[in-house]
Amino acid sequence: MIVVLAGGVGGSRFVDGLVRVVPPERVTVIANTGDDDEFHGLYVSPDPDIITYALAGEVDEARGWGYRGDTFRWLESIRRFGHETWFRIGDRDLATHLHRTRLLREGRTLAEATADIARAFGVRARILPMSNDRVRTRVVTDGGVLSFQEYLVRDRAAPAVTGVRFEGAEAAKPAPGVLEVIARAEAILIAPSNPIGSIGPILAIPGVRRAIADAKAPVAAVSPIIAGRQLQPPALEMMRGLRLEPTAAGVAFLYADLLQVFVMDEQDSDLVPKVEGMKIRPVLTDTLMASPAKRAALAATVLDAAAVKY
Amino acid sequence: MIVVLAGGVGGSRFVDGLVRVVPPERVTVIANTGDDDEFHGLYVSPDPDIITYALAGEVDEARGWGYRGDTFRWLESIRRFGHETWFRIGDRDLATHLHRTRLLREGRTLAEATADIARAFGVRARILPMSNDRVRTRVVTDGGVLSFQEYLVRDRAAPAVTGVRFEGAEAAKPAPGVLEVIARAEAILIAPSNPIGSIGPILAIPGVRRAIADAKAPVAAVSPIIAGRQLQPPALEMMRGLRLEPTAAGVAFLYADLLQVFVMDEQDSDLVPKVEGMKIRPVLTDTLMASPAKRAALAATVLDAAAVKY
Repeated sequence: MIVVLAGGVGGSRFVDGLVRVVPPERVTVIANTGDDDEFHGLYVSPDPDIITYALAGEVDEARGWGYRGDTFRWLESIRRFGHETWFRIGDRDLATHLHRTRLLREGRTLAEATADIARAFGVRARILPMSNDRVRTRVVTDGGVLSFQEYLVRDRAAPAVTGVRFEGAEAAKPAPGVLEVIARAEAILIAPSNPIGSIGPILAIPGVRRAIADAKAPVAAVSPIIAGRQLQPPALEMMRGLRLEPTAAGVAFLYADLLQVFVMDEQDSDLVPKVEGMKIRPVLTDTLMASPAKRAALAATVLDAAAVKY
Repeated sequence: MIVVLAGGVGGSRFVDGLVRVVPPERVTVIANTGDDDEFHGLYVSPDPDIITYALAGEVDEARGWGYRGDTFRWLESIRRFGHETWFRIGDRDLATHLHRTRLLREGRTLAEATADIARAFGVRARILPMSNDRVRTRVVTDGGVLSFQEYLVRDRAAPAVTGVRFEGAEAAKPAPGVLEVIARAEAILIAPSNPIGSIGPILAIPGVRRAIADAKAPVAAVSPIIAGRQLQPPALEMMRGLRLEPTAAGVAFLYADLLQVFVMDEQDSDLVPKVEGMKIRPVLTDTLMASPAKRAALAATVLDAAAVKY
């Protein structure tokens, strides 16, 4: 089984490529839930939803999140009551949040709700939230301590980042199955997601980082930074704020204790010595994922680099 | 102040006529909440919403409920999760239920939530739910004990009614203001609503019926039954099931202890002796409310009959 640690847009596109190369049933995604939040009384789980919609072929390709062709009529209507509407939940998307909220209120775990939703969308890959416990990414900025959505969506990653906290992580347990799939994996892949905001929370759950380091499987990561530009905000803003090198090499540094292989864009060949200096094998390829075919090609390159047969 | 006891579609149309004749601020509606129910984890309050939307000019005129021109995209989407979708909540309508549910979860009362929603819609008449406590109309049928919405919307009033219960009514208190406005009213009007399913729950709240009987103001009702046909289902089905005469006179009988005036359709002139036999003064007019002008004319006739100056 191939295990993928993933955030939202970049992660979902990578997993979409992967299931075009190997049977979806062979893939287990451990998804970031540090961005989960409540809006209008509903429990919203952005990254697992993006992954689910992408694997179901329902995602809005241009935005990378939400349902294809969704409308926002309920959102326009709730403005009447004075509610903030900067977090854009579409009419169809809302049904998912209503369903999840109801399952959680009925006592189901987040992992059960995530699996139920994926099943309803006909997704055959397994999607595990990193934890059933509440972990909240807080971005410390010059504009105050913000939730991840406040920072990214409401404030468009404009406030200067001075720190990042994963509230609740210390007391959180990995979701059932997380440590088991890591231990049994034939390969562990870290998707081209924000290393601080998306992969950071997963690695902050006690036991997860150690399990990956101890796993027998090869561990490979894909850089979400290409020639100093990012696949999705706010990886660069967060890395700069934390005084990390905002390059593919800076990403490799964050995973240095875990990786055997680091897949980076061919435009970043000048960074190869730095990565090799971390005793990680660099692999250069086109990492942009501009089309389904390119996503599949990237996944194939990563599998080859990790010596996984497919 | 003019107090109106009202249900949904018929009640809202009557109140809409009334506020075309007198300033809305002079009108207080006591609305049935026996049809309130939970759908998809949301608290839905059909009659207060219909009244609010009607007074805001936002109601779908053809259906008589819901928002004008609403869409049902979230509802189509939630079907994916196996939920029943016979209760048709539109995308815009859903925003109201999300807002109300949130207010109630935050500890606001139903009356506060109802007032907040009416204010957001710019409604100047006062809308009071009959009670802040949970009262649920249960329709006993040959198909089992059903909620009002199951009976009316899902089963289209097809099961034969053998009884009606207002669960929770005995322990419920009138919402703050209900008894006060009844005591201080210059007139108390019972809208042309289902006398069992819509007005019945209001009169079942301990103290309400007595307060109306004791009030100094004249009490007038308008028949929702015209020539043996109903303005809205399921008044006739419920009256027949309870072996009540399914006519305007049967409606007058249900309110006989309360009424001085009973406004009935001119097509029902043959029923005048029966109403007079109950020591109620019958007033014949066109009660169909087919247009805003006709609604206003009906309201004027009722006010005249109750000797209210306007």
